[in-house]
Amino acid sequence: MAPWGERLAGVRGVLLDISGVLYDSGAGGGTAIAGSVEAVARLKGSRLKVRFCTNESQKSRAELVGQLRRLGFDISEGEVTAPAPAACQILKERGLRPYLLIHDGVRSEFDQIDTSNPNCVVIADAGESFSYQNMNNAFQVLMELENPVLISLGKGRYYKETSGLMLDVGPYMKALEYACGIKAEVVGKPSPEFFKSALQAIGVEAHQDKN
Amino acid sequence: MAPWGERLAGVRGVLLDISGVLYDSGAGGGTAIAGSVEAVARLKGSRLKVRFCTNESQKSRAELVGQLRRLGFDISEGEVTAPAPAACQILKERGLRPYLLIHDGVRSEFDQIDTSNPNCVVIADAGESFSYQNMNNAFQVLMELENPVLISLGKGRYYKETSGLMLDVGPYMKALEYACGIKAEVVGKPSPEFFKSALQAIGVEAHQDKN
Repeated sequence: MAPWGERLAGVRGVLLDISGVLYDSGAGGGTAIAGSVEAVARLKGSRLKVRFCTNESQKSRAELVGQLRRLGFDISEGEVTAPAPAACQILKERGLRPYLLIHDGVRSEFDQIDTSNPNCVVIADAGESFSYQNMNNAFQVLMELENPVLISLGKGRYYKETSGLMLDVGPYMKALEYACGIKAEVVGKPSPEFFKSALQAIGVEAHQDKN
Repeated sequence: MAPWGERLAGVRGVLLDISGVLYDSGAGGGTAIAGSVEAVARLKGSRLKVRFCTNESQKSRAELVGQLRRLGFDISEGEVTAPAPAACQILKERGLRPYLLIHDGVRSEFDQIDTSNPNCVVIADAGESFSYQNMNNAFQVLMELENPVLISLGKGRYYKETSGLMLDVGPYMKALEYACGIKAEVVGKPSPEFFKSALQAIGVEAHQDKN
């Protein structure tokens, strides 16, 4: 295998995941993964473009960035590509008014969105808010629509917390898909559009990421 | 089309569904569907064998039968084929100790089952008990098993109550299937084994139900 310098010769930009890559989430704000604070600083000091690309959907970008800065990372809100703002853009473009099945921590990202008389459902990693009542509300909204639209922020199966494995949004997305006989639109990784929007933000095209 | 008498000539037995066929569930014990009390009486007075075959899994058979008798039906517990007792038989045969993700109303059906140190999950229409915490408990039990076994009492998408459409067990079964990358074993309709056990109880074979 070629040495790093050579292998990076054609690389113009770097997309960094956050949870499990830069830090491990958990009680008290989590902990930085050894070497990651320095790695981010070194990348940002290089000729490479850097963007943070996360499926985090329990927190707003502001909260996430605040947490990372306290851990020593040089990161600002404008450098983060996250599913909630991407979903908001879609909602505005298509005139959609969502029923929000989301975590309270991310609700502020939807402040500018009209949620009256919903004509779609947005589902995210809602944690404890995945109650039967809330799931049933989302289900009833979908069943009353002629063309039900379900937008899911990611489709992860589960994630790890210090307390153990936790169900992510994916299983609940599948539940609503099955109940209504529909297919969700996934916003966030692994959707190609999501990666493209992250690249667009740093002015790099996908075909340029390797020579 | 041949008249009824002729068409029934080869028929030896009748399996009757309960919810939505004999009665509509709802507040205060529900209501009998017009003509159904008389139809059951007439069938039971005929030469035909009759068995009640339900996917009801929010109530024990005792509770269900009590409710139906109060509505005027001639029905006893021993005439009902339901998923919970069928599941109990499977659990005993295979030495399985379930984590029960079920409605409190059906818990008495599992009184004789060892639920210590679970090595499988049984999921049923749990209603409000489908909390994130309970779903995550079931998920964690499955993820710790080398060969995860998930038994689902039915796989219905939803049912209708007077208050509106309600999510049934199926969507939650799909959620756990996706989270764990497994396939559930469905006990109850539409499983052929379930229908066969109902027929067995009245001494009729499937090929005899039509001439």
